[in-house]
Amino acid sequence: MPAAVPRSLQVINGVEAMRTAIRDVQRGGETVGFVPTMGALHEGHLSLIDAAAAECDRVAASIFVNPTQFGPNEDFTKYPRPLERDLDLLRERGCEFVFVPEAAEMYPAGYGTSIDVGAVAVPWEGAARPGHFSGVATVVLKLFECVPADRAYFGRKDYQQTLVVKRMAADLNLPVDVRVCAIIRDADGLALSSRNVYLSPDERRRALSLSQSLRLAEELISGGERDALMVRERMLAHLAAAGDVNVEYVAIVRDETVDEVATISGPITIAVAAKVGTTRLIDNLRIG
Amino acid sequence: MPAAVPRSLQVINGVEAMRTAIRDVQRGGETVGFVPTMGALHEGHLSLIDAAAAECDRVAASIFVNPTQFGPNEDFTKYPRPLERDLDLLRERGCEFVFVPEAAEMYPAGYGTSIDVGAVAVPWEGAARPGHFSGVATVVLKLFECVPADRAYFGRKDYQQTLVVKRMAADLNLPVDVRVCAIIRDADGLALSSRNVYLSPDERRRALSLSQSLRLAEELISGGERDALMVRERMLAHLAAAGDVNVEYVAIVRDETVDEVATISGPITIAVAAKVGTTRLIDNLRIG
Repeated sequence: MPAAVPRSLQVINGVEAMRTAIRDVQRGGETVGFVPTMGALHEGHLSLIDAAAAECDRVAASIFVNPTQFGPNEDFTKYPRPLERDLDLLRERGCEFVFVPEAAEMYPAGYGTSIDVGAVAVPWEGAARPGHFSGVATVVLKLFECVPADRAYFGRKDYQQTLVVKRMAADLNLPVDVRVCAIIRDADGLALSSRNVYLSPDERRRALSLSQSLRLAEELISGGERDALMVRERMLAHLAAAGDVNVEYVAIVRDETVDEVATISGPITIAVAAKVGTTRLIDNLRIG
Repeated sequence: MPAAVPRSLQVINGVEAMRTAIRDVQRGGETVGFVPTMGALHEGHLSLIDAAAAECDRVAASIFVNPTQFGPNEDFTKYPRPLERDLDLLRERGCEFVFVPEAAEMYPAGYGTSIDVGAVAVPWEGAARPGHFSGVATVVLKLFECVPADRAYFGRKDYQQTLVVKRMAADLNLPVDVRVCAIIRDADGLALSSRNVYLSPDERRRALSLSQSLRLAEELISGGERDALMVRERMLAHLAAAGDVNVEYVAIVRDETVDEVATISGPITIAVAAKVGTTRLIDNLRIG
């Protein structure tokens, strides 16, 4: 069989069937890369599928809009669920297994367990979205148990989430290698997000101020600025100038941590969150 | 090689070495039974080794006095640690792998993750020992990840702990079959516990009131008593008569739950906890 012919995509709903499929592949001496998603796939997700395909023999994904990581006033109900399109995209990119569990199997009656990863989950997204990271950590662990892959792939757009997942994997001795891949952006700089579909054309234009403010910071720092407060002020001014962009936080931290820095030296990450209209957006940039 | 010749016991300290040893056995098509312990082994633990040996091809254990399940005023420091004796006992009973991790590997600097299993962890031991069940659930999950066995064995003496572990395993889709084995008692009825070594001869005599009160309850119920309050009163009177037995709780619940019953019908478990001198003891009995 020529290598270019794509293998077919198996859609698996049950936990045991999913686990068995992965174990069978591994028993044959092949490695599996896993990309957990909430569906509504875009090139960000698909770049993770590509990364998994490049590093592993076989690729698995999951599509599950996890209710426990949404707050009561968040967009769980309206979150986009274009399943058939998602399956087509996964198939085209060479994904061979996709786990699509039912909420009733993931959280049956009597369900009671949650995971807290401590300090990395406390600020920013953790503060703005109570319970969010506990929901994320718990469902990611569950998915890792259902899809016991060798490597798992996460996008760096959710910077704090990558810290949460890496903290959990290290702390709980999980036998999976957590890989973090670069943010994928539209040509105008907007970080890809399943939530971008909520934006009106005018909101989308204003939303560009997030990535622009990060590029501005990069320019300031490459020009010699070392005062984090000063960089932050300039970013906030840029975001304010966009009009009707409600900033939740701009954080300048030592890279791979949530520790804010006063003086910029060594690799940092700048993370920003803002509401544009009713749509909450996040973005970040590693510098140095 | 005759079957009666015991295999040797491998003492493994590192997480990766431990996981590899178990995976190698499973890749060869054999099953592994796992008995997590805090050491100070007695016939209760060894009966779990026997159960694992009866149901699985190979047996693994762990010895780790887990600091996070002890409260600040509990007996972590003085908890007995007779390691060489424990290893001899495991070897004699046919255990082939024992995981003896360092606390510094289990809880390195920056460690932050904990697991909460919800309602089953709230009353009795959960109320008396804040943080205890979170510490238990978390270390048990970590041990399951380090020793990825097919089945894991727990003693029913820690009744609520068995509910906590089963709840966690079900909720987190853990690929391990949690098995619960009967309480082992001394000839006089005292449930075996590593903490029994703390008891003076006089305390030990008074400690018998726990198992006696459970037998009394069994007699009352087999004689037709259906009123849980009445059974509880008679148990408390028996415990009071022993002198200097400080009861923490006597709970009569629907078996396999922490739901207290008013009228006894169908299988129940009665759980009791009391301090005798400075030693905290627990016991329980399934009835019906």
